[in-house]
Amino acid sequence: MSRPPGRKETHKISRELFVLTYGALVAQLCKDYEKDEDVNTCLDRMGYGIGIRLIDDFLARSAVKRCRSYSETADMIAQVAFKMYLGVTPTVSCNSAAGNEFSLILDKNPLVEFVEELPAERASLCYCNLLCGVIRGALEMVRLAAEVTFLQDKLKGDAVTEIGITFLRKAEDRKHKR
Amino acid sequence: MSRPPGRKETHKISRELFVLTYGALVAQLCKDYEKDEDVNTCLDRMGYGIGIRLIDDFLARSAVKRCRSYSETADMIAQVAFKMYLGVTPTVSCNSAAGNEFSLILDKNPLVEFVEELPAERASLCYCNLLCGVIRGALEMVRLAAEVTFLQDKLKGDAVTEIGITFLRKAEDRKHKR
Repeated sequence: MSRPPGRKETHKISRELFVLTYGALVAQLCKDYEKDEDVNTCLDRMGYGIGIRLIDDFLARSAVKRCRSYSETADMIAQVAFKMYLGVTPTVSCNSAAGNEFSLILDKNPLVEFVEELPAERASLCYCNLLCGVIRGALEMVRLAAEVTFLQDKLKGDAVTEIGITFLRKAEDRKHKR
Repeated sequence: MSRPPGRKETHKISRELFVLTYGALVAQLCKDYEKDEDVNTCLDRMGYGIGIRLIDDFLARSAVKRCRSYSETADMIAQVAFKMYLGVTPTVSCNSAAGNEFSLILDKNPLVEFVEELPAERASLCYCNLLCGVIRGALEMVRLAAEVTFLQDKLKGDAVTEIGITFLRKAEDRKHKR
């Protein structure tokens, strides 16, 4: 009594199972670590591990060309990577005359779709900190060192959610100067 | 120096970030619990919590009609739910004359895309056990009690990955008989 298989495969999925699974991950880390800072660090570290693996998938699937500037790189993260993996496109703004600091601004953050608010005792939690680690890890694999942190977070009462990316001197350059 | 926003939103995403995040969750639980059985139980319990929330999203997004039989329900899980949230369509087979035992058979399991093999010391780990909990939780919300377990797993050397669903007496019926 077997039915005909319908094994057509697609890489595209609805994001809700992901969003809820991410929530379960954060909840587990909140059980594991008492301090918000430790949860944030753990999420960032996990994200880093994911980013250094995800970059291959991203480059293969997006078939993008090499970016020629930090500005292009920030646009690529917002318009191609966020769209591909989270289904949203943040607005990009450049925050420094030196042209190495950018913000990704999210009006709506799909990762918190099922989160009402942070519990009072978790006021310092960066719920989506995994994303910072993912961006940092992926950038490092294309030889771009960066600091990535949340600057604003709707979950904490801010008007928008804002991820700050500061590109540092290229890892390659640093190596040559040693 | 703000660029025009491109805030078009889609619920469809590439699944690789999800798959890697799920891997980070399982890795964390393996740190937390020494025994595979405890990790399996925890994944199932987490999945259950996800399933009871995901069902609303599923019903709203799929706009499916009410199933009239266990067989239709099993097909719905395979052909609509798996397709929607994991991008694959398992084959369904019925395993009992009573018509309440079904198998979902996956030739390829996207959740293990980045997993080479289970470490020797984790031989009893049901890596994807979250899925069993999700199915169980979602079914319970449409008043169908079921046992959901992995019967075969490619990660453990089996030819396919097989999830067994045994529908139990309806929760509603049980209640009426009390």
